[in-house]
Amino acid sequence: MIERIAILGTGLLGTSAGLALRAAGFRGSIVGWNRSPAGAQTALSMGAIDSVAADPLQAARGSQVVLLAVPIYATLDFMEKLAGVLGSERLVTDVGSTKRQITEAASRLFNTPERAAFLPGHPMAGKERGGAELAEASLFRGAVWLFTDDPSWQRSPHSAALVKGWREWVAAMGAKTLDLDPARHDELVGWVSHLPQFVATALSALLEEEVGDAPELKDVGGRALREMTRLGASPYSMWRDIASTNTEAIQAALNALEQRLAHLRENLRTPELRDEFERANRFRRE
Amino acid sequence: MIERIAILGTGLLGTSAGLALRAAGFRGSIVGWNRSPAGAQTALSMGAIDSVAADPLQAARGSQVVLLAVPIYATLDFMEKLAGVLGSERLVTDVGSTKRQITEAASRLFNTPERAAFLPGHPMAGKERGGAELAEASLFRGAVWLFTDDPSWQRSPHSAALVKGWREWVAAMGAKTLDLDPARHDELVGWVSHLPQFVATALSALLEEEVGDAPELKDVGGRALREMTRLGASPYSMWRDIASTNTEAIQAALNALEQRLAHLRENLRTPELRDEFERANRFRRE
Repeated sequence: MIERIAILGTGLLGTSAGLALRAAGFRGSIVGWNRSPAGAQTALSMGAIDSVAADPLQAARGSQVVLLAVPIYATLDFMEKLAGVLGSERLVTDVGSTKRQITEAASRLFNTPERAAFLPGHPMAGKERGGAELAEASLFRGAVWLFTDDPSWQRSPHSAALVKGWREWVAAMGAKTLDLDPARHDELVGWVSHLPQFVATALSALLEEEVGDAPELKDVGGRALREMTRLGASPYSMWRDIASTNTEAIQAALNALEQRLAHLRENLRTPELRDEFERANRFRRE
Repeated sequence: MIERIAILGTGLLGTSAGLALRAAGFRGSIVGWNRSPAGAQTALSMGAIDSVAADPLQAARGSQVVLLAVPIYATLDFMEKLAGVLGSERLVTDVGSTKRQITEAASRLFNTPERAAFLPGHPMAGKERGGAELAEASLFRGAVWLFTDDPSWQRSPHSAALVKGWREWVAAMGAKTLDLDPARHDELVGWVSHLPQFVATALSALLEEEVGDAPELKDVGGRALREMTRLGASPYSMWRDIASTNTEAIQAALNALEQRLAHLRENLRTPELRDEFERANRFRRE
């Protein structure tokens, strides 16, 4: 039923979505737009999109489904603009990593019987570096694709059918869909996604200052160091918006970890060290 | 030249060393001992050792090279006992993760022309779980095997030849050898090995308490969470001795990271966040 999709933002996630849709058998048209034209050309040459749009709003108007795959504030900007130009029989969805502000905007701007539908989404997939050239058709395979849909939204039957259709394509891409309340979403990803990122960033920045110029460093650091600092390569451009739109949850998580590290530091030679290792072991057993 | 090796402690490292020696073409005898007899039987059945000793000191006396592959305090205990029973034409070496105390004991108990040689060693290889059953002949391939040998030690020519021979076998196992001063070793591994472990333990223990019972947890956490908490499965039994013998370096590193996390937490919405991401990016680029 979905025959025309616009992907606005052909970075890692947008381009991977195009490739995954094709791999899952989507035969309709996919038009792409990217802020930097080179990224759109890469997506085109990889077969993730079959045409490049010069004007994102025009591409959106000509499509049934619009996938916003840009940073969070750019998503919020597009939502404002698209709400004014899209008719009711359209679906807009996104891949943003925080969902409270986007879901609030979706309530305010979309999701009445007279307006387009907006389905807030968040695939738990990515790499420490972005860009179309790293995109893969299998990026979402086995990953969870979260939605923070609001059951109280009243959509037109056609828009509701587009929402259902998009969820089916997400499943066809190999992802497992899961619905969460937006506040719960942001709290949970604050712990399990944002906290690990900021820890990796702090650890990498600290090691850069302390041992970044040690000639033995490359040799001595093994798999553990590589793993614990891999996310240190993540770009500020993506995480700035996450830090700004989930500040309180991230602050609470960082503060809790600081206390935990201080507790470990004070107990390196006491039996409390064993208890802490056992708690950590339990987390990994589950 | 080395024809008889005793491996005291057939856990992950000891058993892997036996397998790696065989894979590298060692044709002499390898006798193994383990505190729990089951571990020695596993090593025997895997072909890492060709006999099991009931008495570790007797096994050591009958060998030219003794590899201590037990926790650090057990290594220090064995050093005291072996110094009394081994003649000068023997080499004892180890795999302990901290080297200052072991190298001091090596100066005190070994490494005169009349005594056995002791070569303090530390392969930067391992897994988050121990045990002979996880051992692999390729565990040391591409890894660094650190030594904190002291150039002022006066060894008998025969002992010196054994040291040279053991270094050659380590290279034949696929490891890259590197010599460090013991204090520098402990400081450096405090940053690049111990700090990442204690961060993973603290993060895992914290997540266990905060979200350990969240039903969505398993689904939502992706590769980043798995990587950043993998070391949370590491056993207390191994890390207790490391925490006790490198306390000051680990405390300094933990304290520095606490401050770094607090700095990030206070700057989630300021340009300083960009600077910290750029420092982290730099660490990963090198």
